[in-house]
Amino acid sequence: MDWLNDFKKLLSFASVSSEPEYKNDMEACFDWVKAQVEAIGFETEVWKEGGHPTLFGSWEKAPGKPTLLLYNHYDVQPIDPLSEWATPPFDPQVRENQIFARGAQDNKGQLFYTLLALKDLWKNAEAYPLNIKWLIEGEEEVGSKTLPTILNKNQKKLKADYLAVIDGGIPDMNTPAVTLGMRGIVTLDVVAKGTEHDLHSGAHGGLAYNPVIALAQILAAAKDPSGKISIPGFYDSIEPLTDDEKTFLDFSFDEKEYEETFGASATGGEVTFTLKERNWLRPTFEVNGFSGGYTGDGFKTVIPSEAKAKISCRLVRGQNPEAIGKLVCEWLASQAPKGISVQAHLHPGGGEAVLTSPETKIVKAFSKAYEEVFQKPCSKVLEGASIPIVPDLQKASGAEPLLVGLGLNTDHIHAPNERFGLDRVEMGRLLIKKAIEHLSR
Amino acid sequence: MDWLNDFKKLLSFASVSSEPEYKNDMEACFDWVKAQVEAIGFETEVWKEGGHPTLFGSWEKAPGKPTLLLYNHYDVQPIDPLSEWATPPFDPQVRENQIFARGAQDNKGQLFYTLLALKDLWKNAEAYPLNIKWLIEGEEEVGSKTLPTILNKNQKKLKADYLAVIDGGIPDMNTPAVTLGMRGIVTLDVVAKGTEHDLHSGAHGGLAYNPVIALAQILAAAKDPSGKISIPGFYDSIEPLTDDEKTFLDFSFDEKEYEETFGASATGGEVTFTLKERNWLRPTFEVNGFSGGYTGDGFKTVIPSEAKAKISCRLVRGQNPEAIGKLVCEWLASQAPKGISVQAHLHPGGGEAVLTSPETKIVKAFSKAYEEVFQKPCSKVLEGASIPIVPDLQKASGAEPLLVGLGLNTDHIHAPNERFGLDRVEMGRLLIKKAIEHLSR
Repeated sequence: MDWLNDFKKLLSFASVSSEPEYKNDMEACFDWVKAQVEAIGFETEVWKEGGHPTLFGSWEKAPGKPTLLLYNHYDVQPIDPLSEWATPPFDPQVRENQIFARGAQDNKGQLFYTLLALKDLWKNAEAYPLNIKWLIEGEEEVGSKTLPTILNKNQKKLKADYLAVIDGGIPDMNTPAVTLGMRGIVTLDVVAKGTEHDLHSGAHGGLAYNPVIALAQILAAAKDPSGKISIPGFYDSIEPLTDDEKTFLDFSFDEKEYEETFGASATGGEVTFTLKERNWLRPTFEVNGFSGGYTGDGFKTVIPSEAKAKISCRLVRGQNPEAIGKLVCEWLASQAPKGISVQAHLHPGGGEAVLTSPETKIVKAFSKAYEEVFQKPCSKVLEGASIPIVPDLQKASGAEPLLVGLGLNTDHIHAPNERFGLDRVEMGRLLIKKAIEHLSR
Repeated sequence: MDWLNDFKKLLSFASVSSEPEYKNDMEACFDWVKAQVEAIGFETEVWKEGGHPTLFGSWEKAPGKPTLLLYNHYDVQPIDPLSEWATPPFDPQVRENQIFARGAQDNKGQLFYTLLALKDLWKNAEAYPLNIKWLIEGEEEVGSKTLPTILNKNQKKLKADYLAVIDGGIPDMNTPAVTLGMRGIVTLDVVAKGTEHDLHSGAHGGLAYNPVIALAQILAAAKDPSGKISIPGFYDSIEPLTDDEKTFLDFSFDEKEYEETFGASATGGEVTFTLKERNWLRPTFEVNGFSGGYTGDGFKTVIPSEAKAKISCRLVRGQNPEAIGKLVCEWLASQAPKGISVQAHLHPGGGEAVLTSPETKIVKAFSKAYEEVFQKPCSKVLEGASIPIVPDLQKASGAEPLLVGLGLNTDHIHAPNERFGLDRVEMGRLLIKKAIEHLSR
């Protein structure tokens, strides 16, 4: 593992894109990645439209060969709650053959093995077997705010035959899989306001309507007891998968293993669908954060002046993020009881769901590479998560997208103690190298 | 106003009883108050049972005269959210004849004018016209945790004929009033837990049950659309006021003024009751704080691992705090959906509602004093807030309790920018002096 120090270096940058105080760390991380990419023959450009910079690398010296566009991101999720980390999130540490750090998997781990694979290919011949473009962005975790503008301005440079988004995973270490599609996403904020300042809950109890209770009532009303989302029109535009499309997919789900792994049974979503359907083919309405009133130590008997929630919806084929976001915002505002005002604010940067045909060359090349690395048949799956920029990347490049990677659902991504297996760095290195070789033939 | 510097001194102590870091400020405040009480002829004792100390002062050199027990507290509410204070909460400042500070009214303002009244009486004769006992506690804002033990141990010393709890208010400056009763209170915490750590809302959306949504659903289910509390048995033990008891009370309520003052219409509580009934004669279920998931800047697409709420119920005659608290805790736990565990924890230190007969001498003496100070008839009202220790004080002293004071509902107690009118310091000084004189006759 002559690469461990380099990997630790990459993980030590606190490249949290959502919080302004990490701006210098973002820049330092970007500079490090840029130098690495240049060292293996790529020409680079820095694309920036008011947000964190995007790195574009290209090597186009294989005339007559197809072009592969790779996608990774160097930014990471926030680290909150810090107190739950066993070791500091930007001081990467190895325990039991796993490395612990924010971004260890999502996406620095996967970015890093891609870099190792390209280094291997470069070392042999100072050339690649096909043309390669590599887009490494810094705003994936904040909804790729400025990337749509960047893609729009650079469509010509992005043209490609294949698009590999290396930010995906596999069901488990015994089940290699390519991910034919993923859900879309839209995010929003909602605030319920009552009186101008907090009130004494005795002097005003029975008089003032409590905004925390109001918001709880509204959020509770967003779903019926079966888990179905009650917002009128929410499901109307969905284009369900045909039976043919479904036959490619592996819908198996081990409920017992899920409960053992995560400490709670899989009881979310709509009970009228199977669990994999709920996770892949049905949209969601989740509250990602809720705050209102006094939440410190001790007790404060107030009727709070306001309550706030952050909400995200995962979307499926046919659902337009902006249209669904507006629908949800308008519905939330319409639910305000008398005495409470409710305002919802749609965030920019949502993304549609994506679905790729299993017959494309990129699917076949990566499936073969997975089978060679794992020595097992490669499944075809979907992903419940979203990479909102993928539909835009697909449009800009003209390539069919495929989501690949070696993430596991036990990697604690977006959570404390994120980790990645050191064995998977070597496997990923081999996977990308083999897939590139198959694509070049 | 030769007393303004003394008042500012009292307000400058950060005597927040709920947070351990203010322990030294609590002690400094206690010492200052003790010295003041000793300077006007009282013998003092420090009563302490593991919490913040209670001051007991007594002057019993009027044989044949009745004994009056006074009650105040020197502790204050937390200051959160600090950012909403126009000036620092423990740097008292006067603007437009009002003084702004945490505790300006509740209860240091009312403690301070009581001190001024006793000083006036003492200055003339170095004697009082009746026997006086004064209990000044330091845990009112944390539910008087240790005072029940203290009262139990010191019953003999507390014996009195009249009990004046100087922590009350008046409807407005044109309506002097004695407060014949107040609601009780019980407080509790509830936590809804899902998985062991936060999950990615895409990878797990449709699989994991979201604990924030679960807790919102449970809290929403605690009330029906008319504001009636849905928890079975919640109202069963209430002993409603008789029509005779109601005739003494002034149920008028100015909805327009409420909306103008607080910035929201009075739409809380049970719509089948009048507003004063909801505030005085009906129990409540309020969420004082709710937290779950990511609530910082930006966005974090998690399914949180848990959600927490702080809940308080105001109680009316017949409702036992412990019994109602247990009922609510058990109901909350019983509402957990599959995949979520819900645990509720009852806090000690609740208190029953209190109601005093309008025919007692203390009611008559204070009513007369209010009428003399305000030159207006004195109303009889109830109070929606609670002083949980009053029923215990009543039992320990054997005296009929009366809640008096000059608080206004525009004083922002328990909220940022708490204030008290400097004119009311002088009025309170006169009120207490005159009431003591009437009681001694």
